[in-house]
Amino acid sequence: VPETNRQIRLAARPQGELKPDDWEHVDVEAAEPGEGEFAARTVAVSLDPAMRGWLDDRPSYVPPVALGDVMRAGTVVRVTASNHPDYAVGDHVVGVFGVQTHVVSDGSGALKVDIGAAPPATYLGALGMPGMTAYFGLLDVGALREGDTVAISGAAGAVGTVAGQIAKIKGCRVVGIAGGPDKCGMLVDDLGFDATIDYRAEDVRAALRRHAPDGLDVYFDNVGGDILDAALANLAMHARVVICGAISQYNASGAVQGPSNYLALLVRRARMEGFIVFDYARRYGEAAAEIAGWISEGRLKTKEHVVPGTIDDFPATLQMLFRGENVGKLVLELA
Amino acid sequence: VPETNRQIRLAARPQGELKPDDWEHVDVEAAEPGEGEFAARTVAVSLDPAMRGWLDDRPSYVPPVALGDVMRAGTVVRVTASNHPDYAVGDHVVGVFGVQTHVVSDGSGALKVDIGAAPPATYLGALGMPGMTAYFGLLDVGALREGDTVAISGAAGAVGTVAGQIAKIKGCRVVGIAGGPDKCGMLVDDLGFDATIDYRAEDVRAALRRHAPDGLDVYFDNVGGDILDAALANLAMHARVVICGAISQYNASGAVQGPSNYLALLVRRARMEGFIVFDYARRYGEAAAEIAGWISEGRLKTKEHVVPGTIDDFPATLQMLFRGENVGKLVLELA
Repeated sequence: VPETNRQIRLAARPQGELKPDDWEHVDVEAAEPGEGEFAARTVAVSLDPAMRGWLDDRPSYVPPVALGDVMRAGTVVRVTASNHPDYAVGDHVVGVFGVQTHVVSDGSGALKVDIGAAPPATYLGALGMPGMTAYFGLLDVGALREGDTVAISGAAGAVGTVAGQIAKIKGCRVVGIAGGPDKCGMLVDDLGFDATIDYRAEDVRAALRRHAPDGLDVYFDNVGGDILDAALANLAMHARVVICGAISQYNASGAVQGPSNYLALLVRRARMEGFIVFDYARRYGEAAAEIAGWISEGRLKTKEHVVPGTIDDFPATLQMLFRGENVGKLVLELA
Repeated sequence: VPETNRQIRLAARPQGELKPDDWEHVDVEAAEPGEGEFAARTVAVSLDPAMRGWLDDRPSYVPPVALGDVMRAGTVVRVTASNHPDYAVGDHVVGVFGVQTHVVSDGSGALKVDIGAAPPATYLGALGMPGMTAYFGLLDVGALREGDTVAISGAAGAVGTVAGQIAKIKGCRVVGIAGGPDKCGMLVDDLGFDATIDYRAEDVRAALRRHAPDGLDVYFDNVGGDILDAALANLAMHARVVICGAISQYNASGAVQGPSNYLALLVRRARMEGFIVFDYARRYGEAAAEIAGWISEGRLKTKEHVVPGTIDDFPATLQMLFRGENVGKLVLELA
């Protein structure tokens, strides 16, 4: 008896905030693995702010998810049948397998992971794309140097929690910007940030001036909007502004809010630079090995927000990101 | 009988556009040169978009002009009396001597120039700050490479005319953005630009797509506002956006218009970087020598817009910049 593969597909191009109607939940027959393929069941689904951008029909760094297609997502899957010499039943594999309960793969773009060494969520977080993003964004694009003063927005998110800890490991002063006292407390008490700013309660521009009186050498931006402007008003000379994301703008149905203070780049002889982590694919191994080392030494703590549920919970879980309800890497874990 | 030094001083902090009342015209007794000093009369006054920023009371790369102070300006002066061994009567000297008819200087920050080799306006233009700005902005900040596609806004201005010609000399395709058919015609017919866009008559975004179908490798921005956004929408991968100025925003009494398309930096893995030409002071000699060589070889044409008049014409002449009435370097030449 063939199994049922339940898929979450894009039903409509969302306007502004995502709605339940933007998705359709579809059952299809689970495919059998052909020669050189394996079949697997989904164990954990990654939820990422970048997903919002993949839903819009405009040119970007990846093609948009087509209407009717299974939603693109990184997942961890467990092999249930295999005609592939490198994959055995019971193996765990990470890849961009999409939001569905069952997958068949020839292994291209996939990576076998040791679920004994770290839980699935970590392979979607600190050892996955968010970890790579933090690592290359800060060290390569941000050209981080020991002694730098660094501010990170979205600091309690999947990328921010890793980025802040890497900056600490590299001998920097780190100011985290996050929403609410719980997140801010966690960043200082648990992850060792030097200071935090609760953007919901504080004037970010004034608080940055207080916490970084000599200005920011590196600003790692995950949010855009007013917080980006506050950071631009507090740059040190020759600062590097790393544009990683702009979650405050992803649901905007009108124009994106451009940074009004961008002329600070001129006054401070600073640069603002964007990047896409995929460009660093050849160096993922190097970064993952270094991050894994820091984790095992207890110098970098993984923060994961695991939501248990079914594949049908994907749309509601994704919303948590845009409401700031997650702490660390948001993952939907399937029973 | 001591001579009279007529000065243009800042009387009020301008709000938005400059008004005649923002200035006062004051006569003082011309100073006598002390030991190690020379006295000189002003021959030519530079008018620069950056001057608008110097009038606002906020932190920038130079202190604001204080209320009651002589307006800051680069000038060419002719020595009339000297107690300085390096300067003789009749010598021409360029320096930041301010908007006044008479100056006394000990020569610090001043440079003697050969008025036989080039007219005063050229020492305030292609061989002065605008030339240095074009040279270092394009070659150093913009990291210009042979074969690049380059767009320049404010292309018919003091910096733009030099920048476009340097890009041509370096083997690039150059698209100039300027206001009106006369300026655009001059850029192509006279200065050898490959294409131009009349921003008053054309949709700049669409025109850039047409003239640079593979995107811009370098965008040199003098204007900000909508034109910056149009350029950001047309970047090639790994593009460099050089922030030199933002003349469209200098008279804004509200917030500066931030570039709504800044997330193109992420999609295109591009960087936007500001600079201040003063940081390159040690290399001015090198740049001036190279530019002078190109001029003498006929590869770089100087474009100067010389307004004859008196020092009292400074405020009205400055307005020409913000109305786009000048072609090339705007200079007030005193009788």
